[in-house]
Amino acid sequence: MSGEEAPTQQQQPEQEKTSDEPPAAVADAPKESEGSPAAEEKTLSWRSLVLTGYGGYDKIKLQVKTQSKPQLKAGEVLLRVKACGLNFAELLGRQGLYDQLPNPPVTMGMEGAGVIEAVGEDVKDRKVGDRVIALSRSGMWQEVVVVSADRVFPMPEEMSFEEGAALLINYLTAYLMLFEMANVKPGKSVLIHMAAGGVGIAATQLCQTVQDVTVFGTASASKHETISQGGVTHPIDYRTKDYVEEIRKISPNGVDIVLDPLGGSDTQKGFNLLKPMGMLIVFGAANCVTGQKKNLLAMAKTWYNQLSLSTLKLMQANKAVSGFHLGNITDEQLITRTMDKLVELYRQGKIKPHIDSSYHFEEVAEAMRRMHERLNIGKVILLPEPKKEEEKPKSNAEPGENVEQKEATEEVKAEKD
Amino acid sequence: MSGEEAPTQQQQPEQEKTSDEPPAAVADAPKESEGSPAAEEKTLSWRSLVLTGYGGYDKIKLQVKTQSKPQLKAGEVLLRVKACGLNFAELLGRQGLYDQLPNPPVTMGMEGAGVIEAVGEDVKDRKVGDRVIALSRSGMWQEVVVVSADRVFPMPEEMSFEEGAALLINYLTAYLMLFEMANVKPGKSVLIHMAAGGVGIAATQLCQTVQDVTVFGTASASKHETISQGGVTHPIDYRTKDYVEEIRKISPNGVDIVLDPLGGSDTQKGFNLLKPMGMLIVFGAANCVTGQKKNLLAMAKTWYNQLSLSTLKLMQANKAVSGFHLGNITDEQLITRTMDKLVELYRQGKIKPHIDSSYHFEEVAEAMRRMHERLNIGKVILLPEPKKEEEKPKSNAEPGENVEQKEATEEVKAEKD
Repeated sequence: MSGEEAPTQQQQPEQEKTSDEPPAAVADAPKESEGSPAAEEKTLSWRSLVLTGYGGYDKIKLQVKTQSKPQLKAGEVLLRVKACGLNFAELLGRQGLYDQLPNPPVTMGMEGAGVIEAVGEDVKDRKVGDRVIALSRSGMWQEVVVVSADRVFPMPEEMSFEEGAALLINYLTAYLMLFEMANVKPGKSVLIHMAAGGVGIAATQLCQTVQDVTVFGTASASKHETISQGGVTHPIDYRTKDYVEEIRKISPNGVDIVLDPLGGSDTQKGFNLLKPMGMLIVFGAANCVTGQKKNLLAMAKTWYNQLSLSTLKLMQANKAVSGFHLGNITDEQLITRTMDKLVELYRQGKIKPHIDSSYHFEEVAEAMRRMHERLNIGKVILLPEPKKEEEKPKSNAEPGENVEQKEATEEVKAEKD
Repeated sequence: MSGEEAPTQQQQPEQEKTSDEPPAAVADAPKESEGSPAAEEKTLSWRSLVLTGYGGYDKIKLQVKTQSKPQLKAGEVLLRVKACGLNFAELLGRQGLYDQLPNPPVTMGMEGAGVIEAVGEDVKDRKVGDRVIALSRSGMWQEVVVVSADRVFPMPEEMSFEEGAALLINYLTAYLMLFEMANVKPGKSVLIHMAAGGVGIAATQLCQTVQDVTVFGTASASKHETISQGGVTHPIDYRTKDYVEEIRKISPNGVDIVLDPLGGSDTQKGFNLLKPMGMLIVFGAANCVTGQKKNLLAMAKTWYNQLSLSTLKLMQANKAVSGFHLGNITDEQLITRTMDKLVELYRQGKIKPHIDSSYHFEEVAEAMRRMHERLNIGKVILLPEPKKEEEKPKSNAEPGENVEQKEATEEVKAEKD
């Protein structure tokens, strides 16, 4: 991986920094436990990625925290994290564009997989040693975290920790959009932007669980083979072609469902592409993220172009518009029910997270850059365990891609892929 | 029925008025047939309700038209109409508020049931003598009409013409909203405004075809018994209570689906009432219709209060907003497929149109007034056949309701019911 512009890559952990905070994963997590001034043998030491301020890749520091072992509250579990997911939200968060993230210093990370090390009172169906997946608002990028037991889901035996960490946000998002908000049925067509990204691959796989669904997927040409194998019926290279024209050539009446993680003018295009009775789901504003740091012009353009519709227009068009943000879902039952379905689909072999690459905590800048520059196909994973000296990055990236990456600078307009 | 303010009620047909127009039901129907100057024996005479200009009830005249028998084009059928449906769109149309209606003089009417009298070339699966339901943009309020064969659907033996005329618009609208746009599933909850109206009763019945669906229905108290029997779980008297508060008392988190035929400020209330992942469907602007004639103030208020939402707001709320207008559906296959389903549900006894009352063409003003003042429970039907001298109106209305009707004047704000 190219590291020439990222001096914080391969960073050495800031050793022995002590923390007064328990390693809580949730923003509204337990206050400092009353047992703090306890004996030395109860001390816990763990690696944590900390966002120290808004800005570029160098704002994320690897720290080693030391603290007395947290007293778990009722309903909590202590998790040793083996793998975490990297999401677009963290790119936004680092730039100060993700309003659900507490102010720095803060540990980001919304999903992870690991092993339960301790359970609090009233935790009935989870026990020490369980391999689980965990969902959180933030704080998962740590070696150990305290999480609420009802946001912890058992993993099948055959699922790796990387797969577990990759299953949560992307598949929950795709599933809830396709089957709870929209109504994917046999014969329908779906436009999936960034079809080689984490949500894109999840959505494509989930579309395959319904008979005769046509998937239009945008991605750069180099990724077409992979996404075609994954189930995209019509891959479209948005870099060299107008995706609206390409879709109209194949389906003059447009599509039934558009999943829009881009925002801005692409939302209007998506709305126009809808067939009558169709639904557009906006679930992001990736068009906001251009350079490494917050870009006010890109933000302004994206917000300015953001679609605003009257219900009269919707009646004239017979169309539906919706917004989705997993972070705003507070219905625990819905999440649990959906996770059960996803785990079952995984067991049946109908879905399988596609891991693009795995980076150790030391390499978080490289991981973020890979996603920022849309080089990934599928999920980028972060590993809490220290990198061994001789170890190569666990990446599926092809050698050629490094060249492409070297050429990219933060001035280059980020591509949607 | 009270007729004191409607001198045109019980009108005598304007006899022998000739017309150059064929009795086409569709707006873009055949031009005058080339065989016009044909022999006398080919002359056709029929009763037709004609909107002569925009305004009050008196703008609709019963005329008898005489013309040479139309030459059917390929794909057309000639239908003898036995019953027609009255819809809210015709109240709007009479006031000049329905943009899909051609300019006066024009015959309104979007649905009817009758018997095929002749078929054009290339009509394969319909034959003379078939009892059918017919859908059209306008022109159904006539004794005979020419319609496109692909908008004509066979009626089951056991279905009356009144039921046939009542099945089309209301049930198509309700079905497409509930099962194509929204995604009614077991356990969901639905708010149905005007639950005693044609679409309201259809939607309520269709909700019963899914297990464990909770229906909140607004209607005036006198109609609660009927709508409860029809399947409304929680009838709400919007005249004496705040429906938002009533629903929150029963379901603090709100509802999953709102069907909104009202528009204006009720749309905003409906949006707020949605649970996350819920959908609001706006399919009308009944709040526009107050007095007998166009009310600019009511229109302005309704349009001013019409909801306009950015996709960002939708993402924050995880909600969907859609618009539905059957008149804008051009997908013939969707309509045919849905009609097949509806006829099948009728055969199975799962849906059955509720006929409020039937009026002869002479009584069209009374029929419209009944709907305008929201006195109807279910469908108001128009019958082309002349009224016999001694015949009482075929109404299910209870005697007491006539008193209420007499008190109503066009100055009274129309109630939503």
